[in-house]
Amino acid sequence: MNRADPPGTDPAWLPPEAFRPLGARRTRIRGAGPLVETVRDEVADACARFGGEVVRDGSYDLLLEVTDGGLGEEGFAYARDGGTTTVSASGGRGLLYGLFHVVRLGEAAFTGTRAREVHRPAKVLRMLDHWDNVAVHPVMGQVERGYAGGSLFWRDGRARGEFGRVRAYGRLLAACGINAVSVNNVNVHGAEARLLTDRIGEVAAIAEALRPYGIRTHLSVTFAAPVLLGGPATADPLDEAVRGWWARAVDAVYETIPDFGGFVVKADSEGQPGPFTYGRGHADGANMLAAALAPYGGTVHWRAFVYDHRQDWRDRSTDRARAAYEHFAPLDGEFADNAVLQVKHGPMDFQVREPVSPLLGALPRTRVAVEVQATQEYTGQQRHVCWLGPMWSEVLGFRPEGEAGPSVGEAARDLVAVSNVGDDPFWTGHPLAQANLYTFGRLAWQPDADPHRVLDEWIGLTFPSAPERLVTGLRAVLAGSWRTYEKYTAPLGVGFMVQPGHHYGPSVDGYEYSPWGTYHFADRDGIGVDRSAATGTGYAAQYAKPWAEVYESAETCPDELLLFFHHVPYGHVLRSGKTVIQHIYDTHFEGVEEVEEARRVWAGLADLMEPARHARVAERYEEQLRGAREWRDQINSYFLRKSGVPDAYGRLIC
Amino acid sequence: MNRADPPGTDPAWLPPEAFRPLGARRTRIRGAGPLVETVRDEVADACARFGGEVVRDGSYDLLLEVTDGGLGEEGFAYARDGGTTTVSASGGRGLLYGLFHVVRLGEAAFTGTRAREVHRPAKVLRMLDHWDNVAVHPVMGQVERGYAGGSLFWRDGRARGEFGRVRAYGRLLAACGINAVSVNNVNVHGAEARLLTDRIGEVAAIAEALRPYGIRTHLSVTFAAPVLLGGPATADPLDEAVRGWWARAVDAVYETIPDFGGFVVKADSEGQPGPFTYGRGHADGANMLAAALAPYGGTVHWRAFVYDHRQDWRDRSTDRARAAYEHFAPLDGEFADNAVLQVKHGPMDFQVREPVSPLLGALPRTRVAVEVQATQEYTGQQRHVCWLGPMWSEVLGFRPEGEAGPSVGEAARDLVAVSNVGDDPFWTGHPLAQANLYTFGRLAWQPDADPHRVLDEWIGLTFPSAPERLVTGLRAVLAGSWRTYEKYTAPLGVGFMVQPGHHYGPSVDGYEYSPWGTYHFADRDGIGVDRSAATGTGYAAQYAKPWAEVYESAETCPDELLLFFHHVPYGHVLRSGKTVIQHIYDTHFEGVEEVEEARRVWAGLADLMEPARHARVAERYEEQLRGAREWRDQINSYFLRKSGVPDAYGRLIC
Repeated sequence: MNRADPPGTDPAWLPPEAFRPLGARRTRIRGAGPLVETVRDEVADACARFGGEVVRDGSYDLLLEVTDGGLGEEGFAYARDGGTTTVSASGGRGLLYGLFHVVRLGEAAFTGTRAREVHRPAKVLRMLDHWDNVAVHPVMGQVERGYAGGSLFWRDGRARGEFGRVRAYGRLLAACGINAVSVNNVNVHGAEARLLTDRIGEVAAIAEALRPYGIRTHLSVTFAAPVLLGGPATADPLDEAVRGWWARAVDAVYETIPDFGGFVVKADSEGQPGPFTYGRGHADGANMLAAALAPYGGTVHWRAFVYDHRQDWRDRSTDRARAAYEHFAPLDGEFADNAVLQVKHGPMDFQVREPVSPLLGALPRTRVAVEVQATQEYTGQQRHVCWLGPMWSEVLGFRPEGEAGPSVGEAARDLVAVSNVGDDPFWTGHPLAQANLYTFGRLAWQPDADPHRVLDEWIGLTFPSAPERLVTGLRAVLAGSWRTYEKYTAPLGVGFMVQPGHHYGPSVDGYEYSPWGTYHFADRDGIGVDRSAATGTGYAAQYAKPWAEVYESAETCPDELLLFFHHVPYGHVLRSGKTVIQHIYDTHFEGVEEVEEARRVWAGLADLMEPARHARVAERYEEQLRGAREWRDQINSYFLRKSGVPDAYGRLIC
Repeated sequence: MNRADPPGTDPAWLPPEAFRPLGARRTRIRGAGPLVETVRDEVADACARFGGEVVRDGSYDLLLEVTDGGLGEEGFAYARDGGTTTVSASGGRGLLYGLFHVVRLGEAAFTGTRAREVHRPAKVLRMLDHWDNVAVHPVMGQVERGYAGGSLFWRDGRARGEFGRVRAYGRLLAACGINAVSVNNVNVHGAEARLLTDRIGEVAAIAEALRPYGIRTHLSVTFAAPVLLGGPATADPLDEAVRGWWARAVDAVYETIPDFGGFVVKADSEGQPGPFTYGRGHADGANMLAAALAPYGGTVHWRAFVYDHRQDWRDRSTDRARAAYEHFAPLDGEFADNAVLQVKHGPMDFQVREPVSPLLGALPRTRVAVEVQATQEYTGQQRHVCWLGPMWSEVLGFRPEGEAGPSVGEAARDLVAVSNVGDDPFWTGHPLAQANLYTFGRLAWQPDADPHRVLDEWIGLTFPSAPERLVTGLRAVLAGSWRTYEKYTAPLGVGFMVQPGHHYGPSVDGYEYSPWGTYHFADRDGIGVDRSAATGTGYAAQYAKPWAEVYESAETCPDELLLFFHHVPYGHVLRSGKTVIQHIYDTHFEGVEEVEEARRVWAGLADLMEPARHARVAERYEEQLRGAREWRDQINSYFLRKSGVPDAYGRLIC
């Protein structure tokens, strides 16, 4: 049990053993300030456990020092020479990240020599958005799309008031490089609205627990806050009274939380209020909030998830995928410096496979946050293993203007994930879903990192001194799990086919005749959405070249996105050489086989970890396998019934 | 406002004006007892309003008398001769029904002459089952499948303790002949279980409010009551301790409610406990409760709704439709005299069209209650007009053994409906849904009554002195509404195609890959469930001749049940001469047109009733039309996509 771990809580990627190499050494710490104190406490704890020492003079193995090195607020330099390891930083945050770098290196931090290398986070904010509700929502519960128990922050309308767990959470986040947390759901209801004003003290208490680990606290606010909270009767962003109300509200927030991060806003989206109500634009709305926050260095994260969620399914001319680009691309350059446009990585909604949002290539003069979803809403809800590292990595590596231009990961200011954490003892419900949270943090620090190297880091930290059999087994069940999940769910980028509402389990036509704009248009002849410019919705033309051309033609479109961009006959031959229908059958049989194999591999690891962790995962594999078979059978039956094309291998399709 | 109507409550089919002919006359009442007092109060109230008189001697227009005429507890004789109308009965209940007969007749009760005619209810119990929960169920709410607001009896875990409305309800029920009410949901959860024991006083208070109108109170109990309520650790029906526990529980109930009606039990059904848990049969379970109730003349209504609700959709050999027959037909003759087997009218679950349950033809030595559903779970949820009189009439007129044998209506002991009433000001949400409740009561009194005559009765009572335009309009919107609803929803008896869970609105595949046993098996070539004996599930063979033969062949099966019994190609030609696919298109276009026409007719009646009633119905027509169009478009699109067969008339199908 480490200092910050409350009883009964899994240590995740910071088990005491991970501190053994550090804790057995002599460490000198130079510097002052609250975060340096955090560093000092961490090292002291490790030494108390493993026999090392924090020294004030004399020889040492490790020097952790705050210098004037121009390394920025969060950067650090690392070197090893003459038997001494040195981490230097320009401030406490950098030193803390340097400390966790040493922990990650393990024994390697204390062997050999290493030329000085500078580490700096690539992204300004590496942020988690919690979709936690203060009051239990009648449909969405305590945590919207939460699969890990209750909220760490709120319970039944009130702040939990238990900060040991929050502090431990902050520590885990710092260890993977995350530096910002938004503490409530972007859908802001009555109870949550008041966090901005008379309940700001509850936010301050969370901020206090997270601050020692360098994490700033942000708040989701409703655009209608002035109206809801006794201010002006309008929320018109150009109304002086409204602007004044927000300015005063922000003053009061910073009086309580001097290092407050800023606001997250879901406006004019899925029923949330926004500037459209007043005939104003999104830049007007975002800039008003930005102006109130600017004096304090706060930012507003303005979500670009704006679309018509009451679409008529009969109307084939409307295409939800086009919406974010249409709303926001024309506003490029109009947002204030501290207004960050937060864009979902894909044009739809966190499906297992989507193209990268064309909006991410259309905002050269706008500060952008890329939003991904660590909580596995559409990817198995933390009952299925689905390690998203490779997907995120693909998104971050995508170059909207082709090879010559910057990648999404290079261009974005911030990287944001919807959190997958709750009050579950394993933090994430499924113990292996911890790898998603860790990977997110590390990719936000370094978007071009090899995700498989990050996965190995996570394995190394979570299972210190793991025998090779365990390392191999963990890699085997995690590394390909995203593609496995893709195989047994909606095929070839077409998306959805999930049960309406809760989004768990298959329902091929579940959203086909709905107002949500998420269709596959399967009929007896073929399937897919024609989003070409020539004959379809024109979505493909929202991309710059070369992507507009690549996606425009079914011949050049990557297989995995074919049905996102094109409606094709079941007999259409993929670039892989298979027909679409045979691809559907094959991948669904393969997906289930891969889950069966992963379950088998997992069963073989029982002797290599605590029984509780093994059992929790084993249980979930039973459910994953049941679910994968259900997906396989529903999808295959649906398409056999519709196409009439038998499986080339004569396998049983019910 | 009549004496029993609480403020703000619609008088339904007992508006003060309905009492004008009676209230303007001189009436003599002879007899004594509580129900005679009810009769006396009713007449006195009417006279106070309309200038007539209750006389103790001298001349009179109407004589209401209790005699020794051998008319049974509930029968009455009616005659008019020499300017005097006479109603005689052998007891207070009969007299009360005779009084409401006079009210129904209106002025006709006081003109001409009429030879003595005897009226007796055909069914012993004419009963409403309330699926009201005491505690609000997290999914099902206060009233399971309730579409008329909260419960009249319970609110948020407690008895409402307001009996004016309950009394008014009893009065309405008596006026259409209903004599029994079960006050809680057949799904009995924790709070409801205790109604049997320490909360029996709450049931007694309801019984007291209903008693003046001749209505007995029944209670749904859980088979696991002994275990749940501190009795033996088993509920084995052959265990002496269990039998003793029930006997004592029943003793205590009758001590509190001497005229208690008995129990309703849903056992071994959809997760409710039952005798199967202890390796016992349903007759064992029912007879145990019957034995406890017998000394007091109480009955147990044992529901036959037993089937596997966790079926594998891949398993085509299991057929839910067969379940009730398979479970209960072998038990014929084994049930105690006061154990009544309560059988849903169809083999599935209250669909807009089902065959009559073959179990109803397989219980010659069992007392049977036929259960219908007044609450419109699958028939528009009281947002759509769907007058069920003709459907119930068809069921009751069905002769399981052919023309020579008795009808279902003749053979059954009791008729039971799931209530459609709540605390809505109009009682039933949709004001026109009152006609379902009224019609149910009247058909329970006389199963072979012409439902259209009953509808006219309801119109005459509800809208006294209605001009012909109103009568014609009401008939126009109600008389054919069931067939209209059938036209725009699931076709040709195939059933379901509803949104899972709440069962409102279309979802063609909503239950297709579910565990509920409710499938349509549509593929690109055809649709329907083969339930023939020759090639299908064998369900058709559960019927006696001639029905087993009629249903066995797609050539002789009635069109409206074709897809219930047979899987046929889309091009199969119906007895009507149309192909199945063209029938689907045509009926769905027609159904919407009929709703449009009904809405137009309703709009033309605005000047003929109170604005609130007209507006409520007009609002619901907007929703019905929206819903009907959604059904039309989803069903037609689904089958066009699947079959590829274009509409013969070239109408737009999205």
